[in-house]
Amino acid sequence: MSPGTLRVLNLLGPEVGRMVEGAAPGTEVITLGPRSTADPALHQAPILLGGWAPSPVFDVLDELGVRWVHLAATGLDRFPAELFRGRLVTHARGVFAVPMAEYVVAAILDYVKLIPERSGLSRYSAHDPYRSLAGQTVGLFGFGSVGQAVATRLAVFEVRLKAFKRHPIAGHSAVHLVSSVHELVRGVDHLVLAAPRTPDTERVINARVISRMPAGSHLVNVARGALVDHGALRAALDTGHLGRATLDATDPEPLPAGHWLLEHPQARVTPHISWRGADGIRAVVDNFVDNLRRYRAGASLLHQVKAE
Amino acid sequence: MSPGTLRVLNLLGPEVGRMVEGAAPGTEVITLGPRSTADPALHQAPILLGGWAPSPVFDVLDELGVRWVHLAATGLDRFPAELFRGRLVTHARGVFAVPMAEYVVAAILDYVKLIPERSGLSRYSAHDPYRSLAGQTVGLFGFGSVGQAVATRLAVFEVRLKAFKRHPIAGHSAVHLVSSVHELVRGVDHLVLAAPRTPDTERVINARVISRMPAGSHLVNVARGALVDHGALRAALDTGHLGRATLDATDPEPLPAGHWLLEHPQARVTPHISWRGADGIRAVVDNFVDNLRRYRAGASLLHQVKAE
Repeated sequence: MSPGTLRVLNLLGPEVGRMVEGAAPGTEVITLGPRSTADPALHQAPILLGGWAPSPVFDVLDELGVRWVHLAATGLDRFPAELFRGRLVTHARGVFAVPMAEYVVAAILDYVKLIPERSGLSRYSAHDPYRSLAGQTVGLFGFGSVGQAVATRLAVFEVRLKAFKRHPIAGHSAVHLVSSVHELVRGVDHLVLAAPRTPDTERVINARVISRMPAGSHLVNVARGALVDHGALRAALDTGHLGRATLDATDPEPLPAGHWLLEHPQARVTPHISWRGADGIRAVVDNFVDNLRRYRAGASLLHQVKAE
Repeated sequence: MSPGTLRVLNLLGPEVGRMVEGAAPGTEVITLGPRSTADPALHQAPILLGGWAPSPVFDVLDELGVRWVHLAATGLDRFPAELFRGRLVTHARGVFAVPMAEYVVAAILDYVKLIPERSGLSRYSAHDPYRSLAGQTVGLFGFGSVGQAVATRLAVFEVRLKAFKRHPIAGHSAVHLVSSVHELVRGVDHLVLAAPRTPDTERVINARVISRMPAGSHLVNVARGALVDHGALRAALDTGHLGRATLDATDPEPLPAGHWLLEHPQARVTPHISWRGADGIRAVVDNFVDNLRRYRAGASLLHQVKAE
């Protein structure tokens, strides 16, 4: 290793390793499998590029000399709290906002326009209740990078937008900020979950909240399955109180074969794909390499995780 | 009939008749069925509110004293040319732009994100080619009220937009205007047809044009089926050269039961529904009543049809 070369321990596979070395000259990347253990004698490195879930390597960070951990995840609820204490940790905050916002708008338009359902019919019915997205109301539970990207895309559709966020934020011209979940769900046609999983958000969408959503309304979850009480969800879908649920995150996840959600006619359930954009892992690599340049220059890193 | 009352002969059914009388006091509406004949002795009226297709009433307009015909259609290709000669004719231009633009964006996002296709899968495949709408190219054949409403909605998705329109128009900041169909289709991910049917546009999407569209690209037709050579379309769908066609207008229309398009796995075919918004016929009535007030005030009418 020549002087000035930065060593990165990489848990994201050989393709990411090659991309990082190509994009950041002067970097030596050591790639380990996501479930591999690291040997402190062999794998000394100041930087760890981690994945979507905990790894055995996290147990020996001090022995490996790791000073900075970059996680390719947006949500951090799967990682142990100790990881974030007394260590520089950054993550892929905002990296997936564009494809996730596209997924959310696709889900909303899918339910409003019902193109797949009407496909293959040779005549329309004058009594079929056709709808416009214009004039509908969308509630955003969580208003970080994903919620804001959704709001930007929906505003041009002449949608009424409401958002709830636990920590106070600056206003957004097109969005009405509300201070409670009950206020958020009142009158919504679509409720979008895009908030982190925390003790405050677990089962926040429960029977009582769902009962206050309008009949026929639509739940879209691109966050974590744990935000939703799935028993209450099932009851609301069965009675038709909820007209549809589009879930990219479920509880449990992945769903076991034969799970009721995979078959429910009112549910669209996808296998945690909303974050995937055209560029695959390129966005993850770009985000990391951007921080790598800052690290080398001694600048402060973007998207730092604060220990709670 | 009290003095000052305006008589309207209405071919759009009793509900529209009641809505017009309610919205425009001082109006007497005589409602005829769309296939009824009118008796010049009974049905004298200066105004005819017509429908989506020709009616026997059109043959006796002079005898009925009709001076102004308002058509509830956007496309006028189904009406005889004589209707427009030496007579004031207005139509529902732009009235359906919002629901039609929503339909187009729904169709595009449906193909990009493939939510229905991925629904019910319990795990995703890392090799599945996921896509973002961001960075894709959309070509608009026709850039009237519908094309412009589509462009407004797509611009926030970071889409590259091209448009072709026969008559020169003012620029649109987000849209690159091109001067030929071949230039329009080069590099498109989605080609949207939103132009009137005229001798110039019939079969404009033929085998040669389709062959210049990129492999896997998507044709969206919300205009008229006659714009597309359906034999060439079928060949391109069968070989997979076109990845999908979303057709709200077909040739013939309606499609007979068992028609190949209704069953083709690469096709989404809906029964001419894209114009239908939340408000049903309200938009049609509002558009007509707006012109009715202008007529009564002696002002010039909106959305006049010029005889060719």
